[in-house]
Amino acid sequence: MNDFKYEYYNSGNIREAIKEKKNVILPLGAVEAHDIHLPLNTDNILVEYYTNKLAENTNSLVLPTMNYGAVWSLSDASGSIDIGTKTLVELIKNIGLSLAKNGAKMLTLISAHFGNIDAAKTAARELYEISDIKVIYMTYPNIRMYLDIFDVVNDHSLYLHACEVETSMMMHIDESLVAKDKLREGVLNVPEETGYTPTKWTDFTDVYIMGDARLSTKEKGKEIFTRVINDAVGIINREKDKL
Amino acid sequence: MNDFKYEYYNSGNIREAIKEKKNVILPLGAVEAHDIHLPLNTDNILVEYYTNKLAENTNSLVLPTMNYGAVWSLSDASGSIDIGTKTLVELIKNIGLSLAKNGAKMLTLISAHFGNIDAAKTAARELYEISDIKVIYMTYPNIRMYLDIFDVVNDHSLYLHACEVETSMMMHIDESLVAKDKLREGVLNVPEETGYTPTKWTDFTDVYIMGDARLSTKEKGKEIFTRVINDAVGIINREKDKL
Amino acid sequence: MNDFKYEYYNSGNIREAIKEKKNVILPLGAVEAHDIHLPLNTDNILVEYYTNKLAENTNSLVLPTMNYGAVWSLSDASGSIDIGTKTLVELIKNIGLSLAKNGAKMLTLISAHFGNIDAAKTAARELYEISDIKVIYMTYPNIRMYLDIFDVVNDHSLYLHACEVETSMMMHIDESLVAKDKLREGVLNVPEETGYTPTKWTDFTDVYIMGDARLSTKEKGKEIFTRVINDAVGIINREKDKL
Amino acid sequence: MNDFKYEYYNSGNIREAIKEKKNVILPLGAVEAHDIHLPLNTDNILVEYYTNKLAENTNSLVLPTMNYGAVWSLSDASGSIDIGTKTLVELIKNIGLSLAKNGAKMLTLISAHFGNIDAAKTAARELYEISDIKVIYMTYPNIRMYLDIFDVVNDHSLYLHACEVETSMMMHIDESLVAKDKLREGVLNVPEETGYTPTKWTDFTDVYIMGDARLSTKEKGKEIFTRVINDAVGIINREKDKL
Amino acid sequence: MNDFKYEYYNSGNIREAIKEKKNVILPLGAVEAHDIHLPLNTDNILVEYYTNKLAENTNSLVLPTMNYGAVWSLSDASGSIDIGTKTLVELIKNIGLSLAKNGAKMLTLISAHFGNIDAAKTAARELYEISDIKVIYMTYPNIRMYLDIFDVVNDHSLYLHACEVETSMMMHIDESLVAKDKLREGVLNVPEETGYTPTKWTDFTDVYIMGDARLSTKEKGKEIFTRVINDAVGIINREKDKL
Amino acid sequence: MNDFKYEYYNSGNIREAIKEKKNVILPLGAVEAHDIHLPLNTDNILVEYYTNKLAENTNSLVLPTMNYGAVWSLSDASGSIDIGTKTLVELIKNIGLSLAKNGAKMLTLISAHFGNIDAAKTAARELYEISDIKVIYMTYPNIRMYLDIFDVVNDHSLYLHACEVETSMMMHIDESLVAKDKLREGVLNVPEETGYTPTKWTDFTDVYIMGDARLSTKEKGKEIFTRVINDAVGIINREKDKL
Repeated sequence: MNDFKYEYYNSGNIREAIKEKKNVILPLGAVEAHDIHLPLNTDNILVEYYTNKLAENTNSLVLPTMNYGAVWSLSDASGSIDIGTKTLVELIKNIGLSLAKNGAKMLTLISAHFGNIDAAKTAARELYEISDIKVIYMTYPNIRMYLDIFDVVNDHSLYLHACEVETSMMMHIDESLVAKDKLREGVLNVPEETGYTPTKWTDFTDVYIMGDARLSTKEKGKEIFTRVINDAVGIINREKDKL
Repeated sequence: MNDFKYEYYNSGNIREAIKEKKNVILPLGAVEAHDIHLPLNTDNILVEYYTNKLAENTNSLVLPTMNYGAVWSLSDASGSIDIGTKTLVELIKNIGLSLAKNGAKMLTLISAHFGNIDAAKTAARELYEISDIKVIYMTYPNIRMYLDIFDVVNDHSLYLHACEVETSMMMHIDESLVAKDKLREGVLNVPEETGYTPTKWTDFTDVYIMGDARLSTKEKGKEIFTRVINDAVGIINREKDKL
Repeated sequence: MNDFKYEYYNSGNIREAIKEKKNVILPLGAVEAHDIHLPLNTDNILVEYYTNKLAENTNSLVLPTMNYGAVWSLSDASGSIDIGTKTLVELIKNIGLSLAKNGAKMLTLISAHFGNIDAAKTAARELYEISDIKVIYMTYPNIRMYLDIFDVVNDHSLYLHACEVETSMMMHIDESLVAKDKLREGVLNVPEETGYTPTKWTDFTDVYIMGDARLSTKEKGKEIFTRVINDAVGIINREKDKL
Repeated sequence: MNDFKYEYYNSGNIREAIKEKKNVILPLGAVEAHDIHLPLNTDNILVEYYTNKLAENTNSLVLPTMNYGAVWSLSDASGSIDIGTKTLVELIKNIGLSLAKNGAKMLTLISAHFGNIDAAKTAARELYEISDIKVIYMTYPNIRMYLDIFDVVNDHSLYLHACEVETSMMMHIDESLVAKDKLREGVLNVPEETGYTPTKWTDFTDVYIMGDARLSTKEKGKEIFTRVINDAVGIINREKDKL
Repeated sequence: MNDFKYEYYNSGNIREAIKEKKNVILPLGAVEAHDIHLPLNTDNILVEYYTNKLAENTNSLVLPTMNYGAVWSLSDASGSIDIGTKTLVELIKNIGLSLAKNGAKMLTLISAHFGNIDAAKTAARELYEISDIKVIYMTYPNIRMYLDIFDVVNDHSLYLHACEVETSMMMHIDESLVAKDKLREGVLNVPEETGYTPTKWTDFTDVYIMGDARLSTKEKGKEIFTRVINDAVGIINREKDKL
Repeated sequence: MNDFKYEYYNSGNIREAIKEKKNVILPLGAVEAHDIHLPLNTDNILVEYYTNKLAENTNSLVLPTMNYGAVWSLSDASGSIDIGTKTLVELIKNIGLSLAKNGAKMLTLISAHFGNIDAAKTAARELYEISDIKVIYMTYPNIRMYLDIFDVVNDHSLYLHACEVETSMMMHIDESLVAKDKLREGVLNVPEETGYTPTKWTDFTDVYIMGDARLSTKEKGKEIFTRVINDAVGIINREKDKL
């Protein structure tokens, strides 16, 4: 039974569930170009799968996915939708205040889209000042420590996009979501300046992959999810224990 | 094939689809108390079902559901989440600008939650000034003309909430979503002042139903959806024809 | 004696009057195109007449008229001045806070201009959160129930503008304000889309009348004012009694 | 005939009038404590009288009075209403933009309330950047050069409030507006710190007069208005000539 | 020893110093065109010299100079940098709140640039509402009473810029900062309209001097500083005594 | 000669210098607690030294130091002043626009305080949308690759604060700025949660050192500056070459 899904509760039983579980997870996704082999909804699919696992394994509630995110680097790429960082900050803040009103002690922001993290951090800090709810935020903790699983990763320290990593993770969730005949190599040598000057990816590539999607496998996706979920569960549980 | 779903497209084929279909539908839902027989997710379920039908029947694209809305009257009721009207205005505006960048000629905002309509109207007006994209917005057009279908409706001209109407519509979509043993009578005589002074519903009732949920049936839900979809399709197609 | 006029009091006696009368009325008008037979000041004249009657009949105070409003639909018509909804919200909110500081228990927002109602409602909700002053807002309560008085009214459920209704009301106040030789027929069939997409009236007509001004009479104006004042007085008194 | 009053025009003739007169005057007033001998509406009465004279003598149009202003120093005094400087800036800016749309070449902001001048200046600067309309702003030009007319004025270089000056000016307009039996001496030695630290007048006095109201006469009021109107007319005409 | 310099303290001893000295001075400068004989940094140099003297003579602390200001009139002149009044207001407000957290009882805003005073006044008023810290603000108090020291001053009541006054003051601080061979006459007859309409100085002159720089001397600078420092010290000490 | 200092130019020669040098560097500092051995001004001293070197070695101009920054983690520590990220974003944006008006092609934001980087990135992105000026931003590039120089560094991947690194760098600039008898060990094991939840450092330590200050030496500081300046010069020059 999906008793960890906030959305299936009703106004008669939700506060009891919040009281018991204490922590509520908000999945942050995005509608964003993920090249031609992955759907625009990739980050929403990833984050939904991932947060369901986290909720189950930490005895938390999980909210419906926030399907729109802050998309800057790929905002000019086909299909991308950008709600802007400021809007996302306000949205998260208001969700946090509503949850506090319902008795939640902790809000966990999980984003499958790296571009949402600035907003998550800012919202967390603003909630820190105006509310007693504890807020934690993360994407995939330690994921770059696990890049040994993969064969080809781009040389940039932050970007994982539509590549062997994300594609394998999507395969693990549902192979039919990946257009296997469209897998291709993307950008391996990310221009250095992306780290210190605003750089739209559309300025340097037509292939929206930071890495190489061809070597993706279901197994690699499973392995990365196993490790990442384990780490995230550890973090959430440690923070829950402090409440 | 769900070729009307924006989310399954990728960055290789989405702009072609937008060019062909012209109109993109944004489903606006909410997480809101719907008494004890309907899930907190009711508006998201309703809007998703409804907009899928509209997209199919108007050759439009439909975006992922915006699962969070502006909830004021029931913001103190258990489980409700309120992102605020201002935040929703900014979100819709930014989605509109992103769609315009992708070539969309028209954005249709469909809300299953009445509380989102102020934001939809404001965002539509602001987009009118800063973009060429045409924006239309509605909940269930003419729904109050169809109240003859129902046996007991509250006396207020605007509110339909968790009542015979909404509950029947949910039954039509999926009977298992409705806790039939929890159906009860709610507020039939909505206090007059709700029309002219800010009034939280929690100030006058513990039952979050504006009407009577007990007389709900699947058939009534089907009938109302048939009429409403027909009307909404007519509106969308007339506006598409003017493009 | 006009002892209901806030503006004639001084700093020595105003707080005593507020304490005794409890309720303060803010008349919300506008400078807006009302075709060629009515002055740009029409809404200010109407609201001033109307609120004086309400103040007298409810033992309330009435403030000086706010002569500028939020004008969107006719903002491109000759003579219209639009201060924007956001500005009007802030203005009402600050007036409410100042009145609360002076001891007022209730603020009644009366607008003769429909376009101000979104701002009135928003300001009322924001004051609800930050102040103890009770705020009610209305235009002409139940006016559409009284359209039987008139011969020709447009088919739209919301718009009354420079038509038989408003013109008759102006005649009742002062016939010299109406250019009787300029009365003409306006828009009877308001385009359906004005209800669901931002539509400037200047896009579909050069005659800024929603209805037909030619059948206006002083008597009809008197009758409508009698009923509307009666209803509004009832509302205000009922809310005052709850204080 | 009052052909200089914007409000009596209609949508058929206003743009022609604006084209001919070029300049539109916006009277900025306030609802503010003016001690016990002057009504709360004093600044609105003064500015209306004053701007009517200016409009007549400069062949300009004059708008309806903006009856609410930014009141800070006396915001805690009985009866004062403060809309805040920010709100007033937005309001003036939007009025300026609406007038520009109607063909006005010049907007003259006239305030009888000194506290509005910061907002007027800020709005004028913002309009300078975003519009071609020329904006000028003033209270009573050179008024402090004419203090020789009066017998007792406070020692502060900026404040004229409910004193011999303002009271005499009100007497000139209409003696019945002044409660002659309530005239009294106010603050002659304004605390030095009002010039360099935020100081609410209610912190240092219960008498809201900056000067002495007892020596007020109709004649003095006439003389000051004659000179001030003459100077303001000169300024407006010189600026109109440059258009 | 520079024991009045906030910046040389550390986290171990600063709160003790604040407790003892109570008042903290924030020097507000600007980067602004000062014609061809004075550096762009003129206001920063002046304010740093000036506030060091004030801190020493009032037993106050002085913060590092805020090197950027609100520059409007000369914002189009070569080298000027304008951070805008709104930004400066927020900055001062946040600095005030941080100082209050550290135990400061009083914040003295000293600006060598007249254009910062609107921001200083607004920030002071906002801090008045939200904090207990006392804020005073000034440029050079009474400086226009001391213009007898100078031979040629422009006819405007407010502007002192790169002229005999400012240049002499810079000479007093360090003669090498003044390019003596570049001294020239500037604008003596400041256009009247600068007092009542937004006027960029670049619209009426290429010489950014409001007066005549040629008659500047070190001695005059010394004399003006002596008097101004004396007056400012008096004000600060009187306000400190009230704490 | 310091011909790279923007502040010593005047309105006669600055635009020529900007034209020739193209790039302008804005040093971003902070007033922040740096424990008991370093002054509150540490980041301002570091950034001034550092940017002077960068300007000299890249033929750029350098602006006066922005002495106030966004301080969050240590905002409750003695002496810290926090202007907030939003204010800093606006300030940088306005400086960028002013520089563009003066002909600058590139703006380099250099912060010695890590807490300013979110603001720098956001401002850079906003300028990207509204201006043609190219903006780059950095602290000390690659500094964590050079931690081999040091003996004891905390285990956190981001924080360098008042530790062996910063203290050594200060010693290299001027040994007298460091209170050598106050050097002590700080936090070596930074709590894991600082990476994923808002954590004020004052919540877990009274020693505001992230590492160990005792092993600091002048020589280490020199070495780190040599490498970091070399890297930053490389980046700036590469970006300048692309103009």
